[in-house]
Amino acid sequence: MTAMQSIGLDNLPLVEEGDDLALIIYGALCEKGIALEDTDIIAVSEKIVSKAEGRLVKLDEIEPSDKAIELGEKSGKTPEDVELILRESKEILHVGEFIVVETHHGFVCASAGIDHSNVPEGYAKLLPEDPDASASKLRGSLEKKSGKHLGVLIVDSHGRPFRRGAIGVAIGASGIKTLWDRRGDEDIFGRALKVTRVAIGDMLASAASLLMGEAAERVPVVIIKGVDFSGDGAGKDLLREKGEDVFR
Amino acid sequence: MTAMQSIGLDNLPLVEEGDDLALIIYGALCEKGIALEDTDIIAVSEKIVSKAEGRLVKLDEIEPSDKAIELGEKSGKTPEDVELILRESKEILHVGEFIVVETHHGFVCASAGIDHSNVPEGYAKLLPEDPDASASKLRGSLEKKSGKHLGVLIVDSHGRPFRRGAIGVAIGASGIKTLWDRRGDEDIFGRALKVTRVAIGDMLASAASLLMGEAAERVPVVIIKGVDFSGDGAGKDLLREKGEDVFR
Repeated sequence: MTAMQSIGLDNLPLVEEGDDLALIIYGALCEKGIALEDTDIIAVSEKIVSKAEGRLVKLDEIEPSDKAIELGEKSGKTPEDVELILRESKEILHVGEFIVVETHHGFVCASAGIDHSNVPEGYAKLLPEDPDASASKLRGSLEKKSGKHLGVLIVDSHGRPFRRGAIGVAIGASGIKTLWDRRGDEDIFGRALKVTRVAIGDMLASAASLLMGEAAERVPVVIIKGVDFSGDGAGKDLLREKGEDVFR
Repeated sequence: MTAMQSIGLDNLPLVEEGDDLALIIYGALCEKGIALEDTDIIAVSEKIVSKAEGRLVKLDEIEPSDKAIELGEKSGKTPEDVELILRESKEILHVGEFIVVETHHGFVCASAGIDHSNVPEGYAKLLPEDPDASASKLRGSLEKKSGKHLGVLIVDSHGRPFRRGAIGVAIGASGIKTLWDRRGDEDIFGRALKVTRVAIGDMLASAASLLMGEAAERVPVVIIKGVDFSGDGAGKDLLREKGEDVFR
């Protein structure tokens, strides 16, 4: 029998710039009597990673460009917000009620992932600069503390074409087979599979997101146990390049 | 502490046309000593729903149209397969290595969800005709047997733009808040949320998909426990209409 458990860590302290996330998470685990085991996955909301890494920007220190002012009028966003979106993006895909971009990391998402919710008044929060590196660093610290082989996921929520509602996606990962290549595997009749690449990282992120909530629930960390998706994949393995995307 | 458990039901008998899925699933639960409780979610692969509903088509009985022959040459698929894809679709979005369509249900996916894997030689498997109705019927039977309020999800795997790899999506649902509208909810500072609609149904489907696998694992049913996403949503709530989709 295969079974997976996801456990939400609630009531963590509010994270501030410079905080040691590994210390905070490990402390919360100990307090709740949760022991880490090999192949456990620690899914962390990008919100607290960004905060710990000091990715808050003071909005009144932003000088909006002419383009930011123009797109601000078009989208109903403030010129300061648009300026930040432009700085974080390598391509603007759509301007309307939402501004959809491809970020410098390669994420296609609204507002370049820049967020005001759960952020102090007058500030905006950017995504981590290199979420795979953030995941790798956090994994190193947690493995050192626990003596176990772990996986770490950095989770954000993205909207998507064709289907309503945001889902959890893995913007960074370490120690996890984020993209499972099943080409060559066979079905129960010994024939080729319909689906050949499986986005394990994003499905784990969605499973974790169900417990994280988006509002004031304060569950920024979810521990996933009972499954072995260990591997050397990264968040960037899940990015589809423009040339291989039939929709771009 | 919030925690979610997903339990995969393996070693189910191979499902055939006319089989009573509720009976098969309830039998497997009893055998494994798993008691259903209120708010439990039964996630079922579309593969066994389609089979039970007799959605297998014999390929040598298909007469391909001229258009099917033409698109077959373009895509490298057989004219019979393309003919089935055309019949199941209301719009063709892309023809290349993949044929991406919008199905009559409104799903944007490759090959109209038509599948040869885990299907006997010489046959193709169509999606259930009305997956929400399938979910509703299965839920009715399982609730009657168990005396509990349950949710049922019908799960398929879809590829998507911008990101690599397929993820689990809810093509049908009953008794579940598939799309959680959070407009008006507030963050920890009392401010509006960045993400306002959350695709609970698809995230539950992805969580279940992690245990289902895609190959010969034979885990077509996953029970999700410990969370309450009960509601009166359906799979179709997750479909974004063309007019509200910035990518179409």
